[in-house]
Amino acid sequence: MAIVDRIEASIGRALEIPQGGLAPAALAEALPYAVLPGGARIRPTILMSVALACGDDRPELSDAAAAALELIHCASLVHDDLPCFDDAGLRRGKPSVHCAYSQPLAVLTGDSLIILAFEVLARAGEDGRTMRLIRALARRTGMPNGICAGQGWESEPQIDLGAYHRSKTAALFIAATEMGAIAAGHDGEAWNDLGALIGEAFQVADDLRDALMGEEALGKPGGQDALHGRPNAVAELGVKGAFDRLNDILAGAISSIPSCPGEAALAQMVRMQSQRIVPRMPARYRA
Amino acid sequence: MAIVDRIEASIGRALEIPQGGLAPAALAEALPYAVLPGGARIRPTILMSVALACGDDRPELSDAAAAALELIHCASLVHDDLPCFDDAGLRRGKPSVHCAYSQPLAVLTGDSLIILAFEVLARAGEDGRTMRLIRALARRTGMPNGICAGQGWESEPQIDLGAYHRSKTAALFIAATEMGAIAAGHDGEAWNDLGALIGEAFQVADDLRDALMGEEALGKPGGQDALHGRPNAVAELGVKGAFDRLNDILAGAISSIPSCPGEAALAQMVRMQSQRIVPRMPARYRA
Repeated sequence: MAIVDRIEASIGRALEIPQGGLAPAALAEALPYAVLPGGARIRPTILMSVALACGDDRPELSDAAAAALELIHCASLVHDDLPCFDDAGLRRGKPSVHCAYSQPLAVLTGDSLIILAFEVLARAGEDGRTMRLIRALARRTGMPNGICAGQGWESEPQIDLGAYHRSKTAALFIAATEMGAIAAGHDGEAWNDLGALIGEAFQVADDLRDALMGEEALGKPGGQDALHGRPNAVAELGVKGAFDRLNDILAGAISSIPSCPGEAALAQMVRMQSQRIVPRMPARYRA
Repeated sequence: MAIVDRIEASIGRALEIPQGGLAPAALAEALPYAVLPGGARIRPTILMSVALACGDDRPELSDAAAAALELIHCASLVHDDLPCFDDAGLRRGKPSVHCAYSQPLAVLTGDSLIILAFEVLARAGEDGRTMRLIRALARRTGMPNGICAGQGWESEPQIDLGAYHRSKTAALFIAATEMGAIAAGHDGEAWNDLGALIGEAFQVADDLRDALMGEEALGKPGGQDALHGRPNAVAELGVKGAFDRLNDILAGAISSIPSCPGEAALAQMVRMQSQRIVPRMPARYRA
């Protein structure tokens, strides 16, 4: 089965859990609304690619890990869109959860998806490998190293930019490479750099997209970084400088891939994913 | 060590995790603010009492379970106090997290505490018993059976009262008895009824306190159920009827205790905890 089909099938199975029994209808409806149809599913795709490169000897575990990671990502989008954060009315081209439902249901949707992510993993096995997956996911999601910390930095008067990007954007990419390796019985730690570099590339690409693209192409309002005065690579390096930085990071990411059976195929996947995330450089910036 | 000291020590160890490394300062401060000093710690006390009644052969596991459960409870208080839910400015006699910090930090504090709860459990062991603890906690916290579902019912035009109380209040008491038994190697399922009945008693006692006590004694505004038109036992049965119901439920709870080494001591604990939660009946209602 193709990676993309495995991911969607696993997410679909995960979303059946909260539908059992007598559940409040609107919240039960809001959970799949926040997760389906998906965005690019980049994080679980990376996770699966790393698992495959490492042999993928327990595919049911990589499937669960991929779904759990994407659920956490979707939860973070729902909470980040809330009026007290980004106040975003659009997400993936449709009304964000608090607009389609309500603020209370958006808070609860995020909470429920976080819990569901851990539940999916805890149902996938009873051994050390499964427990390491849960620990890796918790570490890259919570405080002090996860995406909660990343979002928390935005409430600080002085931002540590390195820590901010590592936790805000890179954390779930690190989770992707670590969890892909762990699911296939490899050492997660060795895959940390690849995730961190992909995350850094993604951050720069996101800054470029935000600066260069409009609402229609993004499926959400553009120019948000400049509007909110948020630190970003385009403000720091200019458009051309940010494109150069992006290419350097991607080259570094590919050379950081640990030795493993599927090393060449994985390098190819990173190149392909890069093309999906990197916006086209406007003609006026080309040499 | 006394139960109360074991619980506070375990919570203290759990709260060290988010303080490591370079964390955003305000969020790092808000986490202990939301957890310390605690309320009555009734849920972890019940969990510990059940674990002890079942032999408590792995005290480090019951310690972790008790801390995890209390972290989830505190997370739910932080999110429930948000303006879009109860809009409560006071909690445990001090400003609630969104008042003391901000709404964004209150959302992130709740999220981080939920994740920390699972992280604490995932660090406590790598075996089936630990995994069953994680599954029990997830089940009683998320959708469709956990406290998220309970809160979700408040957004429904038609509330199923049984499902509402089971998930809103009883869920974490069921988690307490189930997890106490699981931590000590017993079957969690058999302890489900005790938790459900304690939860029901707690709900009725809470309704009575809300109806009979003022803000000063509660540490939060009173009369909220009547104000928000929320379903409650006092509106349904009157004050005297609610007291009678409470006593019936507590008798049922004690007789539901499964056979175990510490059965008598556990019955005594339930009686003691009851006295803590049950408000004094005003003289005009006494026979």
